[in-house]
Amino acid sequence: MGRVYNFSAGPAVLPEEVLKEAAAEMLDYNGTGMSVMEMSHRSKAFDDIIQGAEADLRELLGVPENYKVLFLQGGAHLQFAAVPMNLMRNRVADYIITGQWAKKAFKEAQLYGTANAVASSEDKTFSYIPDCSDLPISPDADYVYICENNTIYGTKFWTLPNTKGKELVSDVSSCFLSEPMDVTKYGMVYAGAQKNIGPAGLVVAIIREDLIRDDVLPGTPTICKYKTQADAASLYNTPNCYAIYICGKVFRWLKKQGGLSAMREYNVQKAKLLYDFLDESRLFRGTVRKEDRSIMNAPFVTGDKDLDAQFVKEAAAAGFVNLKGHRSVGGMRASMYNAMPMEGVEKLVAFMKEFETGR
Amino acid sequence: MGRVYNFSAGPAVLPEEVLKEAAAEMLDYNGTGMSVMEMSHRSKAFDDIIQGAEADLRELLGVPENYKVLFLQGGAHLQFAAVPMNLMRNRVADYIITGQWAKKAFKEAQLYGTANAVASSEDKTFSYIPDCSDLPISPDADYVYICENNTIYGTKFWTLPNTKGKELVSDVSSCFLSEPMDVTKYGMVYAGAQKNIGPAGLVVAIIREDLIRDDVLPGTPTICKYKTQADAASLYNTPNCYAIYICGKVFRWLKKQGGLSAMREYNVQKAKLLYDFLDESRLFRGTVRKEDRSIMNAPFVTGDKDLDAQFVKEAAAAGFVNLKGHRSVGGMRASMYNAMPMEGVEKLVAFMKEFETGR
Repeated sequence: MGRVYNFSAGPAVLPEEVLKEAAAEMLDYNGTGMSVMEMSHRSKAFDDIIQGAEADLRELLGVPENYKVLFLQGGAHLQFAAVPMNLMRNRVADYIITGQWAKKAFKEAQLYGTANAVASSEDKTFSYIPDCSDLPISPDADYVYICENNTIYGTKFWTLPNTKGKELVSDVSSCFLSEPMDVTKYGMVYAGAQKNIGPAGLVVAIIREDLIRDDVLPGTPTICKYKTQADAASLYNTPNCYAIYICGKVFRWLKKQGGLSAMREYNVQKAKLLYDFLDESRLFRGTVRKEDRSIMNAPFVTGDKDLDAQFVKEAAAAGFVNLKGHRSVGGMRASMYNAMPMEGVEKLVAFMKEFETGR
Repeated sequence: MGRVYNFSAGPAVLPEEVLKEAAAEMLDYNGTGMSVMEMSHRSKAFDDIIQGAEADLRELLGVPENYKVLFLQGGAHLQFAAVPMNLMRNRVADYIITGQWAKKAFKEAQLYGTANAVASSEDKTFSYIPDCSDLPISPDADYVYICENNTIYGTKFWTLPNTKGKELVSDVSSCFLSEPMDVTKYGMVYAGAQKNIGPAGLVVAIIREDLIRDDVLPGTPTICKYKTQADAASLYNTPNCYAIYICGKVFRWLKKQGGLSAMREYNVQKAKLLYDFLDESRLFRGTVRKEDRSIMNAPFVTGDKDLDAQFVKEAAAAGFVNLKGHRSVGGMRASMYNAMPMEGVEKLVAFMKEFETGR
């Protein structure tokens, strides 16, 4: 079978051009006579890779100089602990619960101090983003935490919460680099690479320098201290070198696409194709409040579980794969990350129309 | 330039056959129409990959049924913390200090309880393994910790310490799968993949089931609890899927080479080539006590720093790369992991002879 249209929520589709380059360089990267997988992380060749990746990322996002970029291991899950370990100095933090990942982060923070759920959309299966314009922010909160794009439920914060002066920490895993972002609005953002920028096993974190301090909570593993990694430019230990290399290629690919403004335009167009169809369909419907819809992850249902399963099966046979909704939700979900071509969504919508017509 | 002979201590040389397969499968793994990097970690295709890797590893090592195999992130450095967090129930552990990694693990353990250095070879720059037949093991020690093969210094425990009944925990990163090992002698072993079995960003841990418990130290990140990962078969969160895939290929390659007994024979032969030459050379000499020599990492010097640098430079130009010793030691070091062909060591020795002759 040729390449499929891969609507996976993550690990997810990567630009074909990036994969082709990686394949071509597998036995000999840039005349070094070895694969990037075989390369010392302290070699000149790898130094160029990691520094190039950071520089391109900084350029794409316009990361200010007083923010550090860190390439970390352990996934978002390790950050659920590392964020409070590093930032919870008063042992108080406020969490906005908009889905399973925010909730997991919230629960993990309770291991380290008082975590307050200051807003939640759990009452309606996380199908909307709560009003965060005037929340009961704790006076001594060290930060306010959000999961900005909710992969499972398909919602997105289009307006950042009013944190009343507290630091904003945001898990941007599934919307990172899908559009421009104003880094200065955050104390810290982080993203698991496997959604929109590369392979699994890498987290990119961007943290304002004054939040990177030595006085972390007692018992914090040395490797989880942001200061450890910031001081060592992410090379305190051997990082996930190959993932950094692939992400670097994706960053260059994004620049070639015209950068993040161009990506936003492209992503909005792609999502509009699908959402417009969902809004007019008599068989399928979106599950999210319209104004909170993510442009990356679009969940939808027919309302009939058997029919949902039938659709997922027929779609897969036609080359549209990984459309099954998250096991905690059911139904369908189309993830349309940067590397999903317009054509993939066009063809999916055509397929959905055909499926509907037959019924 | 073609492929070089890569003597890197890690990330290190991988079997060319494995890299060729990975390159060929980059855009379409096994008819799935996608790269392994783009694949959901909960897909059938990835499930086959991770389960196949575990099965082959179990077969290679003869891992008993009452041991779990875990694929983890964060490198050995995160294990330096995770080991005490999970196992230090009396808050006491004994460490044998045979190099920089053992020392780092020892220092990290002090964050969590009383870590005792019960033996050390630091007095002679870690150039030997201390006598561990009758150590002052702490009566309430939760475990005794060693770094079994010391990558930087080129020593290896050829006899395991007498732990006087305490659990043995061993960092086997740089000797893992270089020869057969009796897993039942350990409570836990773990290895960073980037030395001998795959790309960086993955740790393989093998832990006896009764040591995998829920009552870890307070403040242990959920993802660092061995129980979390054991219960989820290493899929609690998205693992480093691509590294697991490559390791799986390396495990299959090892089976094709005849398994670990055959690897031992091959590795001993390779190391003997180099050590025999070092012992007769009038220019080069090994830095390690003979009976403690590693067959994976062989440090050597000329005794003259400028000449060392000259050698490293000329060797690199001749296609023998990464022979520079660790920055904390200097001199040279040839790492001869499983994937280093005999020919590579033969040619290196020939090159060293030639270099010596000219002087």
